[in-house]
Formats: sequence, structure tokens, C-alpha cells
Amino acid sequence: MSHDLNIVNAAVDAALPTALTELAEMIAIPSVAAKSDSPMEEGAAKVAELLKKRGFEAELIATFGAPPVVFAQNLSAGPDKPTVLFYNHYDVQPAEPLDLWDSDPWTLRIDGDICYGRGATDDKGHISARLMAIDALLAANNGTLPVNVKFIVEGEEEVTSLHLAQWIDENRDLLDADVTVWEFGGVDHYGTPEIICGLRGIAYLELHVQTIAYDGHSGFIGSLFENAAWRLIWAINSIKGPDGRILIDGHYAPVIPPDDYDRELMEKLPNIEDSLLAEYNMPNFLGDVRGVEAKIQQVFEPTATVCGIGSGWQGEGAKTVLPANAMAKMDFRLVPDMDPETVIAALQKHLIDHGFADVQVHYLGGQRPGRVDPRHPMVKKCIDTARTVYGCEPVVVPLVGGSGPIYPFIKTLGQPVVTCGVGYPGGRAHAPNENLRISDLLLGAKHTAHFMLSLLDA
Amino acid sequence: MSHDLNIVNAAVDAALPTALTELAEMIAIPSVAAKSDSPMEEGAAKVAELLKKRGFEAELIATFGAPPVVFAQNLSAGPDKPTVLFYNHYDVQPAEPLDLWDSDPWTLRIDGDICYGRGATDDKGHISARLMAIDALLAANNGTLPVNVKFIVEGEEEVTSLHLAQWIDENRDLLDADVTVWEFGGVDHYGTPEIICGLRGIAYLELHVQTIAYDGHSGFIGSLFENAAWRLIWAINSIKGPDGRILIDGHYAPVIPPDDYDRELMEKLPNIEDSLLAEYNMPNFLGDVRGVEAKIQQVFEPTATVCGIGSGWQGEGAKTVLPANAMAKMDFRLVPDMDPETVIAALQKHLIDHGFADVQVHYLGGQRPGRVDPRHPMVKKCIDTARTVYGCEPVVVPLVGGSGPIYPFIKTLGQPVVTCGVGYPGGRAHAPNENLRISDLLLGAKHTAHFMLSLLDA
Repeated sequence: MSHDLNIVNAAVDAALPTALTELAEMIAIPSVAAKSDSPMEEGAAKVAELLKKRGFEAELIATFGAPPVVFAQNLSAGPDKPTVLFYNHYDVQPAEPLDLWDSDPWTLRIDGDICYGRGATDDKGHISARLMAIDALLAANNGTLPVNVKFIVEGEEEVTSLHLAQWIDENRDLLDADVTVWEFGGVDHYGTPEIICGLRGIAYLELHVQTIAYDGHSGFIGSLFENAAWRLIWAINSIKGPDGRILIDGHYAPVIPPDDYDRELMEKLPNIEDSLLAEYNMPNFLGDVRGVEAKIQQVFEPTATVCGIGSGWQGEGAKTVLPANAMAKMDFRLVPDMDPETVIAALQKHLIDHGFADVQVHYLGGQRPGRVDPRHPMVKKCIDTARTVYGCEPVVVPLVGGSGPIYPFIKTLGQPVVTCGVGYPGGRAHAPNENLRISDLLLGAKHTAHFMLSLLDA
Repeated sequence: MSHDLNIVNAAVDAALPTALTELAEMIAIPSVAAKSDSPMEEGAAKVAELLKKRGFEAELIATFGAPPVVFAQNLSAGPDKPTVLFYNHYDVQPAEPLDLWDSDPWTLRIDGDICYGRGATDDKGHISARLMAIDALLAANNGTLPVNVKFIVEGEEEVTSLHLAQWIDENRDLLDADVTVWEFGGVDHYGTPEIICGLRGIAYLELHVQTIAYDGHSGFIGSLFENAAWRLIWAINSIKGPDGRILIDGHYAPVIPPDDYDRELMEKLPNIEDSLLAEYNMPNFLGDVRGVEAKIQQVFEPTATVCGIGSGWQGEGAKTVLPANAMAKMDFRLVPDMDPETVIAALQKHLIDHGFADVQVHYLGGQRPGRVDPRHPMVKKCIDTARTVYGCEPVVVPLVGGSGPIYPFIKTLGQPVVTCGVGYPGGRAHAPNENLRISDLLLGAKHTAHFMLSLLDA
């Protein structure tokens, strides 16, 4: 088995044309988990097909009527060899608003170093990086893999991995491995690789209000009946005021603030303040924080975000209507050791206590936060191989602001989690013109391959 | 000229088949003023065509690039005869939400006594009633009209008659008449005709907020940047609290409360509380008012209504987005002597004073409130002819909750305003399944005809 850096890197480079073709095939399938008519089976089947091409056993496993989970493995390295588990997802966020895309979100468009399309970075581009690493290791090793490899590729990541935790719990043996390689990661604003050691949790919900039986004439009944839009506005206003403090009783009680080592690591993260402010065209951050305080606020603070709200007439012109119904979507980002079920229960109590028993909470799903010790030996291997591939000192990120189903991997499977990613800060995940840099794809694939090889070292 | 009740009534009955055919033709034109691609010219041309058929001079007058005003007149009665001015409108509210209609809103559907369609009562059915009255008077009077008749039929009533006040001001001579017959009216929950003496005013506006440059990932930037939806929610919350009191400085200062005679008239209005509560499926009115206090609250209170709000992801499922933009539509209903320009200016100051300078106010249009003395001789003629036609004592309504451009008719033209309407409380104006009862159409047309004849009496 060759550990030669250059041979493996050349093999990754050689894998690029096939990877881009396959990435285009994946992006062409609009596997939007949030929409019930999306071709989720097709998205799963495509991933299984690409893994089978590489000698994997792969199957689509129905999960309680939800989009299937792709489980695949290639254990040809043998039981004395270590096993890596790749966690990825084939589902994507909705592409709307479509008019803000410069090209069709479901058609891979390559412009120089940049590949555009929904899922280009989140998460189909990461699947491509894994496939390139495998192609390179097979090519450099006479068609066999030096370590055992498992894949779990789900179809509900963008809708809070509704069924994954239970599925993992019921398939612990199947998923046994030495380490999980996470579905994202990549470089920061300065091109430095980030090794990510934790994720916030999330609770996603809808709020619904109905007052009158149907929309009415605001001039006729506007003085007499409650307005569903106002009820919802007042209820949401009671959850968080303009100072940003979440007003649900006990919300901050389980929060574990960053410790000294976390602060030290956060200090070392490069400053992306100016580029963030420029990217979003904002004069300052909330609370006017700067420096390490901004970095800490970005990830160590619980959030309450109104993701959407809708009621009444939103079309052109003046419709004088008293809305009967109103709806909002919210996410709460959770830091260790909050948990979503507790947050939802406290929110329901808060609404009742504040006179909003008429505001219904529909819990759409959630995830617990999870962290790995940044000093874990597997994290060290990930850091070391990143240093080799990227040619610079990686940054170690104790916690990131996004969420994912990391908790069952760490707690249920007991595996350390590492990141070998292809993302960059301009990738516009979840937004129009989502994109992936080919140079990042190559580096991320090389990092993946070298990390896999590093498992063979003591 | 025949004053014989039965001859005129029989002539109105005979006019019904033609009227229903013509109503279907008007409803088939989706003249939604709030939508810029609506066939407004076609709607105006249809009304002009129907009036020309009856010997009127009729023209479409362009109003500053807005939907044209139909002006028509038939002065054949001669200068020694009185003149009646009919004010109506050919524009309608949007039909959405379409899925709540039991049949196509743009196709007149007759089911027994009830005609369904957008505009059936507001206001194309009222145009039909005027045409039937004219047909009946022509038939009963050997093809000539006993009084002079003018029509002003606008196309912007549902978008707060944006250009009408200026147009009236510039065409005072053209519109000279002894009385204006208003565009609505009809019977109450008990079938008793209502003679309406005043309308609330209105200010209609949109609120807009933009924070970040484009929608972002709530997990990545949710702790760092302002959320447009939250900004809008907080701003709207500052305008009115759950107790219903509008919090804009000085908002209530110009309010003239009902006097003793108004209260006496309101007392005499029948109680529609139970039917209103049943219709809207509500347990009680705001503030738990009942009896005359509910009647007074319905019309003599200024209101602030959120007619619509929209931001971020409103589609299916969980999109974890921090919205960059948020928009709301609001109307303020105004009682004498409030005026919309003052309200808008005070709202803008309120938002700035409360820290919401980022919330932009777009004023879409407004109308001043207006009232006629319920003891005016023209109102008495209207009451007397209603008593004859309907066979019961009419109720006199000092003020209704809806709005309309009544102020320029009363103040600019100096005309008393009366109502001879075809509406009823189940007519669902502005809502799905808008409808008109044929029995009300016949009564309203007869009232119109007899009121016109009454102008010839001392």
C-alpha cells in the first residue's frame, strides 16, 4: 500500500473528470426533502449506484416511510484493518427564491474554478470528494481499499434528520467503525482548513393561529374580532425582544459556556469579521461585538430565528382583509447541553403563560448538540493530514453554528467525529447560487484519502 | 309619468333576465385593481356599453394612467328636473384564496335565489340594480327618464380610490347633482333596509424591512445579524398591543365620539351579535362588548389591521434560513375627523421614535371619513321610499365600518349621500364565495327607482 503523497494526490487529480460528471448527475435530481413530491428515491438510488460502481455493497433502506437511507460498505480490507464511517446526505434545501439564481439550480454550471448548483457544496460535493478519495486509493492500491469503509447517506438532513437517530440506535452493529467522517467542513476565509469538533443542536417548529372562520372584510369586522396575524406577531414578540434575549423561562439554564481551552481555540481562529460584514452588507454584528467575542457569539449562543412568516394578503396592492390564519416557521439553535424536546415543551408553556394558548406549536424535528474533545487522537490524525495536504497549520474549531445529527454518532455509536470538507465561506449553502470550488474539491478529496491512510498508522 | 308603485315594480321584475345576463358579463371580466395585469379597460368599457344601450352618453376618461373612470349622463329630463348622481365601481377585490371558492369566481353561478361570483355584490350587482331601475323607469315612462341621471363608475375603489378625489375636484361642474346615490347598502341580518349616512376613512400602507443582503443560513449567521422578520414583528408589535389600543402618539386626538343622537340610532339597529359570532365561529367580540357597545365599537373605533405579512420560507417543511426581507400590509380605519396623511406621518415618526427607522412605510392610499346628517331631507326621501318598497321601517345607520371615497362627494361636491343597496350580511364581500341574493337585487332596484321618482316630489 502506497503512502506516497504524490501518488495518491495524482490519483485524486485523475479522478476529477469522472467526479464532475457524477456531481452533475446528482445535482440534476432535485432531492428537496422539504417538498413531499421530490424524487428522493431517485436521489438515493444515484448514490447507491455510484458506490456499487466502486465495489461497495449498497442498499436503500426504507425508514418509516421517509426518504430511504443509503447504507453501503466495502469491508475487503479485512477485520484486522480499521474502519471509517462516512456520514453524508443526498437531500438538499429548496432552491427558492429561484429568481436570485444566475443559472438553473438543478444544472451543474462550471465557471472557471467554480461549480454552481443546489447541493454543489451541501452535500453532494462532499459525496464527490469521498468518491474521489476512494477512486484514488483503489488506483494507488491495485484495486483494493486499504481500510474498511462504510457509508450512511441519509435523505432528511435538511429537515432535521427526522428518523436518523432512531435508525442509528437500531443499527449500532451495522455502523460499528473507528471514526465518523462528517458531511461537511472545508476551508475558512483565508483558505486554512478547519477541523470541526462540534455542532449546535436545533429545534424546528411551526406556529399556527386561527381566529375567525375565514378571512373577513377589515372594515366590517376589524374592530370586533382578533386578527390571526396580530396574535402571531404578539406571540413571537413575547419569545424574544429587540435586545436579542430569548425570554422563555429556563432557556439558558443548560448552557455550558466555552471554557478556557475553547476560548484559546476560538482566539486562534482567523478573523472573518470584515468579510462577513461585507458579504451580508451589514455595518456591524448584533450587540456590536468584535474579535473573539464575535466568534464566540456566532456559535456559543443559543438563537431563536424566525425562518418564515405568512398571513393574509401578500400579493400586489391593497387588499383590506382581516386574516383568519397565520403561520410562522422558527428554528432554535441549541448549544451543549440543551435539548430540543425540553425547548419545545418550555415554549409551549411560555405561550400559554403569556396568554397565547391559541398559538399552536407544531414540532417539525430537532437535534441535540454534540462535541468531540479537540484533543482526541482521531482529531489529531485529521489535523496532521490536513497540515500535510493543505501545507499550512489547520484551525481547530470547538463548535460551529450549524446543526446536524452528530449526537447519535458521538453518544449512541461512541465514535469520534472528524471533518475532511470541501466547503468555503463563499459557498452560499442554503442560498441562491450555491457553489463549490474545484480546487477545494481536490483538496478535500486528498485530505479524505490521507486521513483514511493515516488510520493504518499507530 | 307614473308614480304607480305596482307598474314600476312590475317593470323592475321584467328587467331581471337582462340584468342577470349583463351581471354575468361584468363578473366574467376579472377587473382586480390590485393586480397590474388586470383587464381594467375592458371592465370600464363593459359598463359604458351597458349605459349607452340605455341612451346615455358615456365615456372612458383616463385618470393619470390609472384604470379609467366611466362618466355617463342622460340629461333628457331637462334642466328643470332634479339630477341624481350614481357613484359605483367596476373594480373588484382579488379572488384569492381560490381553493376556498365553491365555483369559479369569474363565472356567475346562480343557485336558487343566490348569485355567486367576485363582484356579485361589491359592486357589479349594484350597477345591475341601477340599470334595472333605469330600465323600469324607461318602460314606465314611454322611453324617457323622469329625472336627469349621471354616473361616475371608477376602477380603483378597492385600492382606496387613489385618483378619484383629485378627479372630482377637477370636474365639479360635470358632477353637479342634487344627490349622490352610494355604491353600496342593502338589508341587515333581519332583512330590514339600512340607510347609511357615513363611512369610516382608511389609510393603507406597506411596511418593508431589509437587513442582510440576501437570505442566509440561520445556523451560520443567526447569532450575528438582524433578522428582517423579527425587525418587522417588533415594529408591528409596537403599533398595537394585545389590549387593542393603538400606541401611535396622538392617534385618538381627532376622534369625535358618537353623540346622543348617534347612540339613539345605534340602539335602534337590530342586534346581529349572535349571527356575527356564528358566522365567524367566534365565542365573543374583542373586549367582550355586547349590545349597543358592540355596535359602537364596530364602527366608531379607529382600527389598525395587519392585512398580510410575509417573510422568508413559507413553503412546506423546514428551511433553516435567516430572512433578509420582510413585508407587511396594514390598514388603519379612520373615524371622523381623522385623516390618512396625518396618520401616516405619525406612524413614520412612531417607528423612528421606537427604534425602527429601518422599517420603511410605503403609503398605498387613503380616504378621509365622511358623514351626512341623518336628518337631511334627501335622507328622509331615501328612508320613506325604502319603507314603501320593503314594507317595514328602515334603520338609519349613522356610520359604517367600511371605507370609501365619500369625503369628496360630501365636501367637494356638497351633495348629500344616500344608499339604495342590494347587499346583505351573508354576501361575503372581499371573501371567497361572494354572493348576491336575487330577491335583494329586485328590492334594491325598486328602491332605486322609487327614490329617483321621489326627487320629483316637493
